[in-house]
Amino acid sequence: MSEVTTTDLYEVTMVMSYLRESMTRPAAFDLFVRALPPDRGFLVAAGVESSLDHLSSFRVTPQDVADFAAALHRPERALEPLLGLEFTGTVRAVPEGRLVSAGEPLLEVTAPLPQAQLVETYLLNQVSHQTAIASKAARCVLAARGHPVVDFSLRRTHGPGAGHQAARLGALAGFAGTSNVAAAVAEAIPAVGTMAHSYVEAFGSEEDAFRAFARCHPGPVTLLVDTYDTESGVRAAARVLRDLDRGPGSAVRLDSGDLGALALRARALLDAAGLPDVRIVASGGLDEYAVHDLVASRAPVDVYAVGTRVGVSADAPFLDSAYKLVEYDGAPMMKLSTAKVTAPGRKQVYRRPGRPDVIALADEPAPDGAVPLLETLMRDGRRTGPRATLPECVRRCADDLAALPADARRVRGPVPLRAESSPGLTALTERTRRELEERRP
Amino acid sequence: MSEVTTTDLYEVTMVMSYLRESMTRPAAFDLFVRALPPDRGFLVAAGVESSLDHLSSFRVTPQDVADFAAALHRPERALEPLLGLEFTGTVRAVPEGRLVSAGEPLLEVTAPLPQAQLVETYLLNQVSHQTAIASKAARCVLAARGHPVVDFSLRRTHGPGAGHQAARLGALAGFAGTSNVAAAVAEAIPAVGTMAHSYVEAFGSEEDAFRAFARCHPGPVTLLVDTYDTESGVRAAARVLRDLDRGPGSAVRLDSGDLGALALRARALLDAAGLPDVRIVASGGLDEYAVHDLVASRAPVDVYAVGTRVGVSADAPFLDSAYKLVEYDGAPMMKLSTAKVTAPGRKQVYRRPGRPDVIALADEPAPDGAVPLLETLMRDGRRTGPRATLPECVRRCADDLAALPADARRVRGPVPLRAESSPGLTALTERTRRELEERRP
Repeated sequence: MSEVTTTDLYEVTMVMSYLRESMTRPAAFDLFVRALPPDRGFLVAAGVESSLDHLSSFRVTPQDVADFAAALHRPERALEPLLGLEFTGTVRAVPEGRLVSAGEPLLEVTAPLPQAQLVETYLLNQVSHQTAIASKAARCVLAARGHPVVDFSLRRTHGPGAGHQAARLGALAGFAGTSNVAAAVAEAIPAVGTMAHSYVEAFGSEEDAFRAFARCHPGPVTLLVDTYDTESGVRAAARVLRDLDRGPGSAVRLDSGDLGALALRARALLDAAGLPDVRIVASGGLDEYAVHDLVASRAPVDVYAVGTRVGVSADAPFLDSAYKLVEYDGAPMMKLSTAKVTAPGRKQVYRRPGRPDVIALADEPAPDGAVPLLETLMRDGRRTGPRATLPECVRRCADDLAALPADARRVRGPVPLRAESSPGLTALTERTRRELEERRP
Repeated sequence: MSEVTTTDLYEVTMVMSYLRESMTRPAAFDLFVRALPPDRGFLVAAGVESSLDHLSSFRVTPQDVADFAAALHRPERALEPLLGLEFTGTVRAVPEGRLVSAGEPLLEVTAPLPQAQLVETYLLNQVSHQTAIASKAARCVLAARGHPVVDFSLRRTHGPGAGHQAARLGALAGFAGTSNVAAAVAEAIPAVGTMAHSYVEAFGSEEDAFRAFARCHPGPVTLLVDTYDTESGVRAAARVLRDLDRGPGSAVRLDSGDLGALALRARALLDAAGLPDVRIVASGGLDEYAVHDLVASRAPVDVYAVGTRVGVSADAPFLDSAYKLVEYDGAPMMKLSTAKVTAPGRKQVYRRPGRPDVIALADEPAPDGAVPLLETLMRDGRRTGPRATLPECVRRCADDLAALPADARRVRGPVPLRAESSPGLTALTERTRRELEERRP
């Protein structure tokens, strides 16, 4: 599957026309999220690095031309003007891991119009999906209030690629590990895991299963205790861990039932068995709402394993993202149609401590004490520096989460981060709208 | 990214233990969906073919062993028993495109326990995700009542792989095309597309943009008419299509606003312009609910382009799927824990015209007039026949949709397809539960 042809057909038909009309002057596009989903106080910018990877390697090959021609039922020569097309433009973006809000450009692409247009679909895909998942994961980290959170989502993500991203984006947001082996190895994330109910069933007895597991795996083990009945499962785990002197670092995992009540019971049983160091892992349909409620109820859960609902961002599985032309050949551009008005011109986003962000024109002076969010990460089609490492992104996200206002942190009913338009942007928007309306027939 | 290591760590730790304990007798696992999401009357079985691809090529390589060892912080020799492990088992499955319901095995894997366990995560991922998306797409086809539906989802699916699957599964469910070029070419699906608002903006005038597009693209064209104001957009499109005599097969696309009202107005304007053959494509946040309402209101929309909400199955982005041990070394197995009881034994699902399906034991006689759903698609690790082609799956899905009871077809509040347990399965479930409870300490 070529990344170049992983695009909407209309990008190709538009570019064919641009080339035919010699419309190859520089264009600027903003990639942004129009509105936050319900129960989102912020977004975690993500998908920027893989977007830059895509742009770095973008080149229309003869096979791509053949595929475009086949899709369009056109002769290959009609597509030949696209052959060899590469991305030679500039990208300004919010570095991965930073928190952003609705309306703020996450990525600005400036390039000859055909190039900037042809990459639209892929960039939207990367940034929309990854930002949605990273934002969901960050909410889990906030909800856990310092307890480790780990990713168990691979089995129900939208394919293995999405599973890999879920592991990476969970780590970016502050997760302590993932069950996904391939992602753990590729991204240097701690791999975590326990056992399935089928393992216990195959042995026929929990105690036999736990002893066999401990025989095979030296050091701390995590034992799944709810295959038949959680209380007897915890007792069996306690016997095995105590007999083998494997308590410290080991854990029991609760995966069904009333996790809060079962965690209390399990803690009491483990403590009574002289195993205060054995931790409790909770899993089974968890998301930030469930984690928040467990933490709020002071359930003695030590580690939260979140899965499906986080890996697919179940309550907000997509973002209302857009990639909009804001400037062509030096002239500001915007769209007027109902409820989808876009702001014209090249922009900068400024963050001010304790106050709303400001979305300004790129050439406006920075507000006092403000820090710009958009950085130039690609120039002339080349990265301006090395790819950001995952630990760098983790730090950025942790720093921004630490500075997040309390009302935006809330799991339920957060007050979203706000952004205001600068005087310059407001004036340009009004002027462009007026000019467009005057020009219309 | 190796498909073998794209798995949960616990599959690996369990298999290490199984091998150490010589627990390599045949095991049977059922892959099924526990309950249908709200507003689902049926599921479309999917993900079976890519599961079989995975099993056909499954082989633990030295690199996989190294990656497992790295993830576990164990020496490679501890993982060496897994080296060269292949899948040599049998798979019975519901062929892709058939309709199924909750509790019915979609896939049954029978293989030596370590093999059957190690493939769990990948198979769950394939079948859960693809079945969710195919089911959502089939609901769109039903809602459209014969109008063509096309897929525009790539920009917001969970990565490019998920976008490819959305295109394929849309086609499987009966879609007429996709905007995704790579998927269209790879899967032989018609590629469809129009233009973006940015194209119109870059020209500054809708009429200039439409004329340029028509100059570049001979034959029918689809013109996007809502960049500034839909009514003036339709008028401009009508002028261009009439002047150039390009009406038949061409279309206008509405992408915002009150699509029903705008379609009525666009139809009237096109008819008045002598362009009764110009079709109307509607897009913009559509899903089966919106399509149903537009069709019910008799909006003169000819083609429905659905995108994000279908490509991510927005109202049900995951299925409550499970992969459960049902037999080991000839003995029936089940799990008892709260609310997650599973039915033991190897099974067959029978479909009876006008009556609920029957989930029976594999060796029970078929009910009168019943057709089995599970077919043996892999034996000794090899497919029993060629990979099912997409057109075959399309036909199966269309046949099953045509036979679907009216109350299961409803877009809102459908009555789900039902399945009953056979007397043999009911008796085995009770007996196994009793034996397990007697054996427990």
